[in-house]
Amino acid sequence: MEMKLPGQEEFEASSAPRNIPSGELDSNPGPGTGPSPDGPSDTESKELGVRKDPLLFIQLNELLGWPQALEWRETGSSSASLLLDMGEMPPITLSTSTHLHHRWVLFEEKLEVAAGRWSAPHVPTLALPSLQKLRSLLAEGLVLLDCPAQSLLELVEQVTRVESLSPELRGQLQALLLQRPQHYNQTTGTRPCWGSTHPRKASDNEEAPLREQYQNPLRQKLPPGAEAGTVLAGELGFLAQPLGAFVRLRDPVVLGSLTEVSLPSRFFCLLLGPPMLGKGYHEMGRAAAVLLSDPQFQWSVRRASNLHDLLAALDAFLEEVTVLPPGRWDPTARIPPPKCLPSQHKRLPSQQREIRGPSGPRLTSAEDRHRHGLHAPSQELQRTGRLFGGLIQDVRRKAPWYPSDFLDALHLQCFSAVLYIYLATVTNAITFGGLLGDATDGAQGVLESFLGTAVAGAAFCLMAGQPLTILSSTGPVLVFERLLFSFSRDYSLDYLPFRLWVGIWVATFCLVLVATEASVLVRYFTRFTEEGFCALISLIFIYDAVGKMLNLTHTYPIQKPGSSTYGCLCQYPGPGGNDSQWIRTRPKDRDDIVSMDLGLINASLLPPPECTQQGGQPRGPGCHTVPDIAFFSLLLFLTSFFFAMALKCVKTSRFFPSVVRKGLSDFSSVLAILLGCGLDAFLGLATPKLMVPREFKPTLPGRGWLVSPFGTNPWWWSVAAALPALLLSILIFMDQQITAVILNRVEYRLQKGAGFHLDLFCVAVLMLLTSVLGLPWYVSATVISLAHMDSLRRESRACAPGELRNFLGIREQRLTGLVVFILTGASIFLAPVLKFIPMPVLYGIFLYMGVAALSSIQFTKRVKLLLMPAKHQPDLLLLRHVPLTRVHLFTAIQLVCLGLLWIIKSTPAAIIFPLMLLGLVGVRKALERVFSPQELLWLDELMPEEERSIPEKGLEPEHSFSGSDSEDSELMYQPKAPEINISVN
Amino acid sequence: MEMKLPGQEEFEASSAPRNIPSGELDSNPGPGTGPSPDGPSDTESKELGVRKDPLLFIQLNELLGWPQALEWRETGSSSASLLLDMGEMPPITLSTSTHLHHRWVLFEEKLEVAAGRWSAPHVPTLALPSLQKLRSLLAEGLVLLDCPAQSLLELVEQVTRVESLSPELRGQLQALLLQRPQHYNQTTGTRPCWGSTHPRKASDNEEAPLREQYQNPLRQKLPPGAEAGTVLAGELGFLAQPLGAFVRLRDPVVLGSLTEVSLPSRFFCLLLGPPMLGKGYHEMGRAAAVLLSDPQFQWSVRRASNLHDLLAALDAFLEEVTVLPPGRWDPTARIPPPKCLPSQHKRLPSQQREIRGPSGPRLTSAEDRHRHGLHAPSQELQRTGRLFGGLIQDVRRKAPWYPSDFLDALHLQCFSAVLYIYLATVTNAITFGGLLGDATDGAQGVLESFLGTAVAGAAFCLMAGQPLTILSSTGPVLVFERLLFSFSRDYSLDYLPFRLWVGIWVATFCLVLVATEASVLVRYFTRFTEEGFCALISLIFIYDAVGKMLNLTHTYPIQKPGSSTYGCLCQYPGPGGNDSQWIRTRPKDRDDIVSMDLGLINASLLPPPECTQQGGQPRGPGCHTVPDIAFFSLLLFLTSFFFAMALKCVKTSRFFPSVVRKGLSDFSSVLAILLGCGLDAFLGLATPKLMVPREFKPTLPGRGWLVSPFGTNPWWWSVAAALPALLLSILIFMDQQITAVILNRVEYRLQKGAGFHLDLFCVAVLMLLTSVLGLPWYVSATVISLAHMDSLRRESRACAPGELRNFLGIREQRLTGLVVFILTGASIFLAPVLKFIPMPVLYGIFLYMGVAALSSIQFTKRVKLLLMPAKHQPDLLLLRHVPLTRVHLFTAIQLVCLGLLWIIKSTPAAIIFPLMLLGLVGVRKALERVFSPQELLWLDELMPEEERSIPEKGLEPEHSFSGSDSEDSELMYQPKAPEINISVN
Repeated sequence: MEMKLPGQEEFEASSAPRNIPSGELDSNPGPGTGPSPDGPSDTESKELGVRKDPLLFIQLNELLGWPQALEWRETGSSSASLLLDMGEMPPITLSTSTHLHHRWVLFEEKLEVAAGRWSAPHVPTLALPSLQKLRSLLAEGLVLLDCPAQSLLELVEQVTRVESLSPELRGQLQALLLQRPQHYNQTTGTRPCWGSTHPRKASDNEEAPLREQYQNPLRQKLPPGAEAGTVLAGELGFLAQPLGAFVRLRDPVVLGSLTEVSLPSRFFCLLLGPPMLGKGYHEMGRAAAVLLSDPQFQWSVRRASNLHDLLAALDAFLEEVTVLPPGRWDPTARIPPPKCLPSQHKRLPSQQREIRGPSGPRLTSAEDRHRHGLHAPSQELQRTGRLFGGLIQDVRRKAPWYPSDFLDALHLQCFSAVLYIYLATVTNAITFGGLLGDATDGAQGVLESFLGTAVAGAAFCLMAGQPLTILSSTGPVLVFERLLFSFSRDYSLDYLPFRLWVGIWVATFCLVLVATEASVLVRYFTRFTEEGFCALISLIFIYDAVGKMLNLTHTYPIQKPGSSTYGCLCQYPGPGGNDSQWIRTRPKDRDDIVSMDLGLINASLLPPPECTQQGGQPRGPGCHTVPDIAFFSLLLFLTSFFFAMALKCVKTSRFFPSVVRKGLSDFSSVLAILLGCGLDAFLGLATPKLMVPREFKPTLPGRGWLVSPFGTNPWWWSVAAALPALLLSILIFMDQQITAVILNRVEYRLQKGAGFHLDLFCVAVLMLLTSVLGLPWYVSATVISLAHMDSLRRESRACAPGELRNFLGIREQRLTGLVVFILTGASIFLAPVLKFIPMPVLYGIFLYMGVAALSSIQFTKRVKLLLMPAKHQPDLLLLRHVPLTRVHLFTAIQLVCLGLLWIIKSTPAAIIFPLMLLGLVGVRKALERVFSPQELLWLDELMPEEERSIPEKGLEPEHSFSGSDSEDSELMYQPKAPEINISVN
Repeated sequence: MEMKLPGQEEFEASSAPRNIPSGELDSNPGPGTGPSPDGPSDTESKELGVRKDPLLFIQLNELLGWPQALEWRETGSSSASLLLDMGEMPPITLSTSTHLHHRWVLFEEKLEVAAGRWSAPHVPTLALPSLQKLRSLLAEGLVLLDCPAQSLLELVEQVTRVESLSPELRGQLQALLLQRPQHYNQTTGTRPCWGSTHPRKASDNEEAPLREQYQNPLRQKLPPGAEAGTVLAGELGFLAQPLGAFVRLRDPVVLGSLTEVSLPSRFFCLLLGPPMLGKGYHEMGRAAAVLLSDPQFQWSVRRASNLHDLLAALDAFLEEVTVLPPGRWDPTARIPPPKCLPSQHKRLPSQQREIRGPSGPRLTSAEDRHRHGLHAPSQELQRTGRLFGGLIQDVRRKAPWYPSDFLDALHLQCFSAVLYIYLATVTNAITFGGLLGDATDGAQGVLESFLGTAVAGAAFCLMAGQPLTILSSTGPVLVFERLLFSFSRDYSLDYLPFRLWVGIWVATFCLVLVATEASVLVRYFTRFTEEGFCALISLIFIYDAVGKMLNLTHTYPIQKPGSSTYGCLCQYPGPGGNDSQWIRTRPKDRDDIVSMDLGLINASLLPPPECTQQGGQPRGPGCHTVPDIAFFSLLLFLTSFFFAMALKCVKTSRFFPSVVRKGLSDFSSVLAILLGCGLDAFLGLATPKLMVPREFKPTLPGRGWLVSPFGTNPWWWSVAAALPALLLSILIFMDQQITAVILNRVEYRLQKGAGFHLDLFCVAVLMLLTSVLGLPWYVSATVISLAHMDSLRRESRACAPGELRNFLGIREQRLTGLVVFILTGASIFLAPVLKFIPMPVLYGIFLYMGVAALSSIQFTKRVKLLLMPAKHQPDLLLLRHVPLTRVHLFTAIQLVCLGLLWIIKSTPAAIIFPLMLLGLVGVRKALERVFSPQELLWLDELMPEEERSIPEKGLEPEHSFSGSDSEDSELMYQPKAPEINISVN
């Protein structure tokens, strides 16, 4: 619980959660970490008694000697003088230089010599003969394991101590090997000069690493403790026969400027020989480097005790390689690093049967579990059987963490998280406040939204089971509130008192749900239900946004030619001529034609607002029309929608540094609103604006902050309110719990546990509070909470080229949320600025939210499949395991359900739609008769009973269902998007 | 010259052009044909004495025997009864079934058993051990080359005649092998049923192929003469030791229902053995099938005479395979077919040195040549040194083809080409006509555009050297005409007579250029010049489109609140009250308030147009404003622009069949115009529309179709016109010849040769004609001509999964163009419909053309690089060979040049901009002092002198410049986009 400096813990062993199985038990941090957040779990590695091997940086230096040297004669002199300096042999005419051409950490990088830059990391490809040649060279060559050399000089001496070399040749070779290699200096951006121009002095001859080695940007990316492996390969004219040497140093030592980055070297491999056809030694060198970069080979060779072990490891490597046929693959093509790598534990059976491997038994990974419907941490969702048992357990579980919930926030990262989430929350408050005010004729408004968000959010952060949750007015509740409002208007009810009773009843029902531990039922909400829920709400959002926009064209009609809305006169009260009044009101330098003509009567052509101000009365068909507003509003609407959509896509573009891209995409709705306001302000048209009260008082005129319990309603309405409250309770329960399950997924590696019952309890209490104060209702918002968690990710900073960052966990604490909501509360004083926001801009953002939510669900992907010819369909695993007709049938059933929901929503019975949403669970249950469990497993998830009906190993479909098909590796790495995400950002 | 039926010639050997070297000399049509249009050149293959081997379809049938059969006991009965039918042995309890799981033509397809569909074709990946096991199994097994078996029965008997089998086992095995395999029937879409339910009768026992085999959709895709290869692999419990057999049939024979598609089988491979761990025999079977699908192995094994040859071919395959390390690549990942495959001739040195290979010496491919600036067919651009020598040569070259230019058009494909190009031409005529009318105050218009296009286009098609060219008003000429018009207005000239003299002079200058064979200078226009030219014109288009759109907001101002543009009265002439007039004009049931008030004066609130009609006079500041038009025009502008852009992108989307996608994308501008017109008509606002005369007469009132030679201009202007004519000549020459070079590129495989001089001559003659008639000026349009050629592509119809179609050539003829222009001429009578097209829509298309042209050039790609962090830059070959700073320097120089051109264009001296464009050639020449030839080779092309300065082999940069770097394979396949493409579509 001590305070940690930024970046400090990245290299410490993370204390992994106990109850989360990890699929990654590798000794090497690199391989197997695809986009899945499962990094290596060090604790478990330690438990299994495996010490973590350091990361290995491998580079291939090529010796370019005769006959190429003829071209670089200039190099000769420096080499020659170097040899003279060494004082060991007479100057020779032969010239060489050593160049670094390739390097590996996880993937291969090649130096583009002409362009002077390192290539993008790519999967190394080898030719089979070079591997075989390497094997025979090593088999005949020198293998020194645990070599005690302490410097490059010693090492070179040991390596060249072979019989086949004459003393003269040996000296020549040693001089060559001690020559300073040419590295491309990325910092200065200079191209590697061919041959060193300044001969090394005897003083820095030894192992003093060069300044450039320290400045190398790669160094920042390698974790402390990383070691180097160097492969030297080349063709030397004076050698009569090949010379191969493989050295493992007992103690890693910095070998002068041999490596590009100043790292202690552990491995050294020398592959030299007489010139041969093709790029023989170069390719052999690459093969050796690729071998060394292979985690399994590395593991073996670190523990090898003799040549036999080394060759066995090489053979094991050969057993496992993937072979691409020459006629169907261009060997020179560069393969980008794959999104997912095979877990190295898969390589166990064939390879590690004899030698004890670094991996333990295979465990089910988080993705595996998640995919099979076990996405909720099951411990928290076990029924205790006692009244409020779940709640009590939640409180017990969370209480010990309470102090750390504040101490863990002391990290710089939390500041940026606060800023980001604050802006998102305020945008949300403005948008939903504006829409609620619109929908409820001012019973709710922006001020209420700010106040409610601040109060409810802060309270939730202090009390809740999952304090990373951000409360918000979400789509479903907004839709319900609109229906409730029109319901109360139909019955001429006093809205807020009626709403208070609804809130009281909802709180009661929710408490009952907490007491009976109903939250465990959440596992019946499968993806089918979630997607139906989300799709309906999204469609309502889209429909409403477009509808409200079109409504504006009725308020501000378009003036067609020949329409009667032309012309408007400003008439003054007096029936006769009142010359003085006319003269008085006449604007000075304006339009003398009209004033001259109209001096005869009591009328002018003043625009209606000015006319009224002057005491006149605007008369004429054109007086009520405000031109240009309709189309300009439409432009604002479209602009803000498309701009927000476009900014969202910036994240995956190639332009700008990733920080800028992330910023633009994260703040897409804020920026879209700002753009809309800017456009509006620039043209200065009288577009409809957001309504904000001028002072700190409720938006509805004439009410205090406390809602009176009855108002003008008959008393029995307070009982009747139980009926809509029941519907709202269903909605709140579904919305809250589906979100809670998503937030507490195992892949986020939360350590402090979830609190499903406690969260619902808090929502119930806040429901009561907000109803009493007449504030909006709040539940957990999926997307903004996920953004909150994402901004608090702890990741390893060391990131080798081509590797994705390791996810270590999330800073679970209550402080960031609390600060965000305090800031939101303080922002109430910003309210006067908000009146410059045009409503069409908010409608555009509204549309954006609906479209974004709709496009995130799998259902939409399947609807798109309907339009795609089978040939062009993406290679979804779903399609590999379920016949297309069955997929389409499932989609069609979902479409029919959605259609029925929409019909209900369009009837006067619209308010019962939460009940129908619940009905989706029943439909899903009935689907078991249409689809086999295997199909449902791929199309949806399994319900609790179905899970039980399938044997334990059945949860891994690649074994039970697809028979011989094990080509499902990508599946593990397809993260599931949140199902419900209607909120800003 | 005989008439060909559609599709007939696809399988005939195409008569390839003599002078075009082909990089594809492979015996197999499949490999090596990437997106490059270079298919296999049969003629040359024949010349080299190589007979083309038929395409091989390979499938892997897996024998699923014991112990799996326990699961499918139902199968047993049918197998048993089959065995009884055979009458050879007693029924056995052992049950098996044969299933097809994988197939190959070029790439591998896997049957997704659960989903019941074939996977997308992918590159097959193998494990090395399975290849090695296969080798040893074949080495010990039975190899029958030129086996004379005539049926499956004979074949099976021969294959099972090995000593290791007891007679009983042999019988059992034969029965198994004769069992009918289960194929997945794609036509009916049924899932493969596990085990045949109807036992085969003795009558169809023999080689009668099944109906499904014929119905298989794959059959349509395979060319006639294709052969099959079958691999049968499986584990059989009753076998004591492995059984391997490889058979090459002397005469390919249809082996009953063994293969999925009814094809004569050439190869048969049997790999059986006792059950073993893993998927041993399955993987061995895959390895055998992959081997057979390799073109080189196939070639060898077709010619192998003994086991040794077979094993040598296998070893040669192993030598060439690409190896991916296990830790960095997931072996189960499916690799999509690469865009480009290595030319199989690359595999020559290592493999074909002993045995005479199918390929000849390496020739420079079309792409190779093109990349190095040799993109123009050099023969046509050799200077003869005689006056009009080039023109005479052109006429001589083209004359013999003249009859065939009409006969070759007798093909169905030409009808669709005519329809497509007609629509594109009409769209072009409308857009450019509208814009020209706009730019020249009606001196040109839509009618002139239609008439001119028809006359000039048809004449060109009849006379030109390259009749596939579509003439059009292109961007540069349009820009010049606008400048010329404002110039003539500045000097108060009579425009059309002045323009006539300019045309006369241009025709004269062009004839001089033809006479002096100036067209050969076109090779000095490198990409640098072309891109500068295109970028400037595109920017002018974009600037003009936006400018014209903003001008509309001045014509139809936006009414801001408080602005003085409010109110309008309709005043009648009489100074006193004229009651009768008022009563007469009062509309019946309209606005009684106003009529009551205004009965006192001679005024009403009628809208201005009605007021004028009634004899009144609209007075007031609001009379000249038409509300809503400005924003609605902006909406139309944006809608047509974005819609056209979006439709253009549909081509690469996954949705809809490719025919629909191609249609939507090809007709994007037509559809965008239609959408704009529809929107406009729906709302019925008085937007500015395209001006079309009501009858067939010139747009400019009061002129005949013949332009008078002097008009009101002083005579000496006819001499002074020579100066602007010189500038226009430069422009016409550049525009015409750059386009001509692009159209005559070698990769289009034109057989009838080009006619650069003849084309320019025709343009000169038409220049004269159009000037006399006062019609627009025409030169060749790149994009529409390329679309024309594209719609006339001859391609091989047979297309194996994963393969791209083979390009055979283009139907070179004059008829399609001629018909298109005759139809365009006839469309003049459609003109009255055109007046419904709103101008903002045309401006939107205008903007679209500019943006599309700008985004197609490499310059834009390099500008984008400026905004990309180095890490995210695409892996362009350019960037592999030129340092980033040098690339940026080159881009910066281009930007500066463009800036200077823009400044000149904005000054009164704008009309001299063609001279400045020519100046780009000088700048390019000067760049030779800044950049090395190697860098210019990658960034631009080489000029004729530079080419000479580099030795012959220097034209292949991978050998001369990049030294050891041979990883440039993709380069060969990066097709170059046309540089100048400002025209609709």
